[in-house]
Amino acid sequence: MQPGWLKEYFKPQDGAGAHAADGQAGTSGDDVSRRDFVKSGFVAGVEVGMAAGSVAGIATDAEAQTTNPIAGSWWPSPWGPNDERGANNRITPAKILEAARLIKTGKIYQLSRVLEKGIPLFGERLGAHVVIPGSPTGGPFGKHQLHYHDELFVGEIGQAGTQFDGLGHIGMVANDGKLRYYNGLTQEQVGGTYGLKKLGMQNCRPFFTRGVLLDVLAIKGGERLPINYVITVDDIQQTLRRQGTREPGDGDAVLFRTGHGKLWKKDNAEFNKGCPGPGLTAGRWLADRKVAVVGADTWPVEAVPGENPDLVFGCHALWLTVNGIYINENLDLEELAADKAYEFAWSFNPVLIQGATGSPGNSVAIA
Amino acid sequence: MQPGWLKEYFKPQDGAGAHAADGQAGTSGDDVSRRDFVKSGFVAGVEVGMAAGSVAGIATDAEAQTTNPIAGSWWPSPWGPNDERGANNRITPAKILEAARLIKTGKIYQLSRVLEKGIPLFGERLGAHVVIPGSPTGGPFGKHQLHYHDELFVGEIGQAGTQFDGLGHIGMVANDGKLRYYNGLTQEQVGGTYGLKKLGMQNCRPFFTRGVLLDVLAIKGGERLPINYVITVDDIQQTLRRQGTREPGDGDAVLFRTGHGKLWKKDNAEFNKGCPGPGLTAGRWLADRKVAVVGADTWPVEAVPGENPDLVFGCHALWLTVNGIYINENLDLEELAADKAYEFAWSFNPVLIQGATGSPGNSVAIA
Amino acid sequence: MQPGWLKEYFKPQDGAGAHAADGQAGTSGDDVSRRDFVKSGFVAGVEVGMAAGSVAGIATDAEAQTTNPIAGSWWPSPWGPNDERGANNRITPAKILEAARLIKTGKIYQLSRVLEKGIPLFGERLGAHVVIPGSPTGGPFGKHQLHYHDELFVGEIGQAGTQFDGLGHIGMVANDGKLRYYNGLTQEQVGGTYGLKKLGMQNCRPFFTRGVLLDVLAIKGGERLPINYVITVDDIQQTLRRQGTREPGDGDAVLFRTGHGKLWKKDNAEFNKGCPGPGLTAGRWLADRKVAVVGADTWPVEAVPGENPDLVFGCHALWLTVNGIYINENLDLEELAADKAYEFAWSFNPVLIQGATGSPGNSVAIA
Amino acid sequence: MQPGWLKEYFKPQDGAGAHAADGQAGTSGDDVSRRDFVKSGFVAGVEVGMAAGSVAGIATDAEAQTTNPIAGSWWPSPWGPNDERGANNRITPAKILEAARLIKTGKIYQLSRVLEKGIPLFGERLGAHVVIPGSPTGGPFGKHQLHYHDELFVGEIGQAGTQFDGLGHIGMVANDGKLRYYNGLTQEQVGGTYGLKKLGMQNCRPFFTRGVLLDVLAIKGGERLPINYVITVDDIQQTLRRQGTREPGDGDAVLFRTGHGKLWKKDNAEFNKGCPGPGLTAGRWLADRKVAVVGADTWPVEAVPGENPDLVFGCHALWLTVNGIYINENLDLEELAADKAYEFAWSFNPVLIQGATGSPGNSVAIA
Repeated sequence: MQPGWLKEYFKPQDGAGAHAADGQAGTSGDDVSRRDFVKSGFVAGVEVGMAAGSVAGIATDAEAQTTNPIAGSWWPSPWGPNDERGANNRITPAKILEAARLIKTGKIYQLSRVLEKGIPLFGERLGAHVVIPGSPTGGPFGKHQLHYHDELFVGEIGQAGTQFDGLGHIGMVANDGKLRYYNGLTQEQVGGTYGLKKLGMQNCRPFFTRGVLLDVLAIKGGERLPINYVITVDDIQQTLRRQGTREPGDGDAVLFRTGHGKLWKKDNAEFNKGCPGPGLTAGRWLADRKVAVVGADTWPVEAVPGENPDLVFGCHALWLTVNGIYINENLDLEELAADKAYEFAWSFNPVLIQGATGSPGNSVAIA
Repeated sequence: MQPGWLKEYFKPQDGAGAHAADGQAGTSGDDVSRRDFVKSGFVAGVEVGMAAGSVAGIATDAEAQTTNPIAGSWWPSPWGPNDERGANNRITPAKILEAARLIKTGKIYQLSRVLEKGIPLFGERLGAHVVIPGSPTGGPFGKHQLHYHDELFVGEIGQAGTQFDGLGHIGMVANDGKLRYYNGLTQEQVGGTYGLKKLGMQNCRPFFTRGVLLDVLAIKGGERLPINYVITVDDIQQTLRRQGTREPGDGDAVLFRTGHGKLWKKDNAEFNKGCPGPGLTAGRWLADRKVAVVGADTWPVEAVPGENPDLVFGCHALWLTVNGIYINENLDLEELAADKAYEFAWSFNPVLIQGATGSPGNSVAIA
Repeated sequence: MQPGWLKEYFKPQDGAGAHAADGQAGTSGDDVSRRDFVKSGFVAGVEVGMAAGSVAGIATDAEAQTTNPIAGSWWPSPWGPNDERGANNRITPAKILEAARLIKTGKIYQLSRVLEKGIPLFGERLGAHVVIPGSPTGGPFGKHQLHYHDELFVGEIGQAGTQFDGLGHIGMVANDGKLRYYNGLTQEQVGGTYGLKKLGMQNCRPFFTRGVLLDVLAIKGGERLPINYVITVDDIQQTLRRQGTREPGDGDAVLFRTGHGKLWKKDNAEFNKGCPGPGLTAGRWLADRKVAVVGADTWPVEAVPGENPDLVFGCHALWLTVNGIYINENLDLEELAADKAYEFAWSFNPVLIQGATGSPGNSVAIA
Repeated sequence: MQPGWLKEYFKPQDGAGAHAADGQAGTSGDDVSRRDFVKSGFVAGVEVGMAAGSVAGIATDAEAQTTNPIAGSWWPSPWGPNDERGANNRITPAKILEAARLIKTGKIYQLSRVLEKGIPLFGERLGAHVVIPGSPTGGPFGKHQLHYHDELFVGEIGQAGTQFDGLGHIGMVANDGKLRYYNGLTQEQVGGTYGLKKLGMQNCRPFFTRGVLLDVLAIKGGERLPINYVITVDDIQQTLRRQGTREPGDGDAVLFRTGHGKLWKKDNAEFNKGCPGPGLTAGRWLADRKVAVVGADTWPVEAVPGENPDLVFGCHALWLTVNGIYINENLDLEELAADKAYEFAWSFNPVLIQGATGSPGNSVAIA
């Protein structure tokens, strides 16, 4: 999720005080009219959150009576109360061997986009800012007069471009009134200043698993699915049938093609407005099938504002927080679709940054 | 290469003016006495460089008479004069299929170390600095009271921790007196302010290829090879025989285990002083076999100060600049060695940062 | 205040969970044994804080019974309930004219230290990291072949080196159980993600006022006052008498010379261990006299661990939070003392960074 | 100077290769049509620069025949061959006493603008990016439950917002073909990777001197002077007469009001297109009078594209490089003009960042 989105499209009322809405007036995004869902249910939902949330998102005792409509209590995890890896545990040797057997042509697909200037960004995010110190940075050394370059990087490395959300990215308030993350870890246990104290990306091991492309655009037709088209379970099943692909299962990575990614760097404003994708119903169906990763050619993977705008980014909470399922955003799935490569070995090797909320990296399909 | 090394161990004379040696007094590393090689040949070599190098490393006309002892002219590349991918071109479908066939047990090995505070760093480098803006960064949203975290990263992302050197990292002065990089690209063509203009990491595609561990420590014995032990071609061949491993070939990734990596975070000062590894002779042998990647459990992969201290970091120039072979540094090869996993599918998916000199990322073996 | 101090010198117990004490093991400062005050009262005090403080420092209802021993309710400010400038309001035209009349020799004293590598830093702070992008950054332009340099700065600009604490830097829990700042502003009102929402440095105007040096070292003798020497009101009065200086008054800047600053870059570890300075008693005496700024040649200005270790950094709260008095740290007062320049025009022109917690800048005396 | 300007308004031809023009396509500024001066003389000038400049801006021997039209040889400085302070040396005790005598009403004017998001920025610059790590960053400590905030700053601190150009900011190619800076220091001596090796801001002491406002807009009328209106010596003299102000002299700070600053944050695109200001003729007149600082309510202080577009930013070179005169950009002079405060004590206390090319800071007039 690129959370600045809410700031761009939902300007909080005076005093509403959502954390993301710092007092500093933004300078972008004002050309987009406030959307319908914001005017109705979504605002209602946000206001409930406002009322219920204290400064740092900790509900007080009275508020704890509220029942969280997505899940009120979701721990311990299937991998025990101390687990910080989530569905990454599903990448077993058997799964790896299954993935290896899917490599048949030796063609490699690079699903990640270049991290560069001019990509869709949100709110007050910097994106990727690279500086070459000196040019060259150093030299000459030795009789061969060697010189070198290096770079300084500044940016939201885990939450910009093609990104991979870690388990510490999203939490929600449980029925006991506490802000909790995957495996029920509390804000006190997870939150940190110079990196998360728990659930940082360093806990996650490489993914090498069965990947499934769901080319939903192919059954619906058109250039791209409309913004907030909610992909249904029936859409998924039709797509599987059309493709002749086996249903997603335990440890799989499932990638949705919606066509929305065609807007990337072509019409960033439209790209950011919202997107098609699975809603909570399809999200639960995937969680029931115990997939390990869900990805798409959109910025939040799930439909936004979603099946129920009162539960905006509900799949984020359902997948990351409740089920430990990882999310891979902003993919380029066009080459896979053109090749009808619906099943493949999918590889993602997270960058092990201590305490990071996510990871940059190249999402790869090998067919 | 972590180029701050030279600053740490070779304090330039007044006016010597190597680029890396900014006027600002360092505060670390002074406890290490200047080493013998610095006092003799290495300094000689550096002084030659100094004499020959102008401000930005461009030799002037008179100086262009000098013959570069590693290679005086190394372009066009085997992949044409416009190629920016180098040995990454060797990862063909056939190679990928060969790699997939090496997956037999389904065990995955994570060869990268966590990017965190306290890792060996050099000179004025920052390493990896992560800040969580707010904690949580934003929320609450919706009736589920969703909150999120993201992070700001500041650091030398491509040249710290387990790192992967891109083709724009190293250049040297060719016999025409110009500072040139892979494929003969000049400093003018490559150097940039906000990222390299050519040879940035975005040109490199994912690696999925045959990986070979060369456990040279196993034939030599001891806890680790001594600093500046130069691995010979005979050492390599003995190791291959002992392991029963087929010789490295076209497109392979070759990983040297020296034991030096055991110092990581245990004795960073000793880790940084220099290291064992292949010298120019073994480096050429590998280049002749057309490998795509060389890695090791040391910070520069090659022996430092090396086979010929006048040609410090000579393999960097030979591999990256002359042959387009990539370098993967600071690996953890202990688990592979313990399992006698000498041959495997090796996977590295570079982070596609526009204009970057290298990439962070998880180096992975699948056996 | 350089708050990393607490992390360096007080390693929290498991689960103690002070915010500053992220789970990531530090790599520095371990050579300093835990100090006596930490073993006794300070720990007691911290534990009280721990017990009373929730995740984000918001006391819950039951805990709100605790009476804050420094001040339980300190708002509205003398300048009204909406004021964000505090004692900066005391810099009136009359005060400025008074300051101008103190300029008699035309000698200017630079009280700030250079912001550079190798200065005392704390915890996980970066300090000042400057990178020159390219070198030169750009050019040539025009027939004169103009080139330019610029720099990228990364660091805790408001809280490193010679620093000036703004009013949003420090808050404490009021008797109503809420974390509050200057003028009673709550954490909800002040805290922000990309800069403070209230009390940022942009609210503060330039200081040009009467400055008073209190050379306490001169009456006590020795190289420097011992760490945690608590300067008394009697010390101040003796110093004033010895110097023949009029008592500090409304709008003045008062600068304490303790000699502790001689350790700067000479013995950073000793510098960081604690320091001499006024305690809460002298702190209140100064607040009663309505001074605008208190400075010193130490990192927190006040004695640390202080007159009452249960109230560590108590003057920070008393001055910034309760009285809106600014703090100027890490000054170099040696030249002023050598010249017996005890009274002067004092000038500090804050850098107006929106939402910043403090300001870098040159603290200047004109005599 | 905000050098990204050239990138915004002059898109280099293929292969033209000005340093500032990295290969990465920009995403902003394209709405501004290339201006006339760019199509004619300016391009000619730039092309001469291009032809004459090698990769790092060092002219080769043959090219050294070119005579620099602004100054071909400008060293040693009046303060000796080792001076790095330039016209800051003119701030003598006598000058300071003169300035103090100008304080008559005690009114303080803040001439700096807030460093914040939404200010005019150029090219690939970040501006000022502030992040609050955690919120609060740390606590609770003690029985008073103290908490603190600090911030991480990322940005071009010396070259964004109201800025003060240091002597290492600008160089030009001298008649000996070398790229040289103030006092003839060469690129080799000045250029650095982690800060300038010479001429960094740490060399500059506080300014407290006579300030003169030249309200040129008042004699010309209108809302603002047109872009590229070149202020003449006659304009200056008329303005002085109208104001009854004594001519600028040795050590003075001269501030031009053009009205262009009214565009700040109102029409950033127009603000950036160019600006009115003194040209080389008036620039020389000021240098002959030995002023210490020139400022204005525009981004480069001088007219852009200027009196002679072949010598773009010619006053930058004339003032900084040849005469060691400092430049103070992006001032807000409206309150001074409204009060007819034409003469005052002017105060600027540079932030002493080691190796920095400029300084942020509050430019202050005291009348």
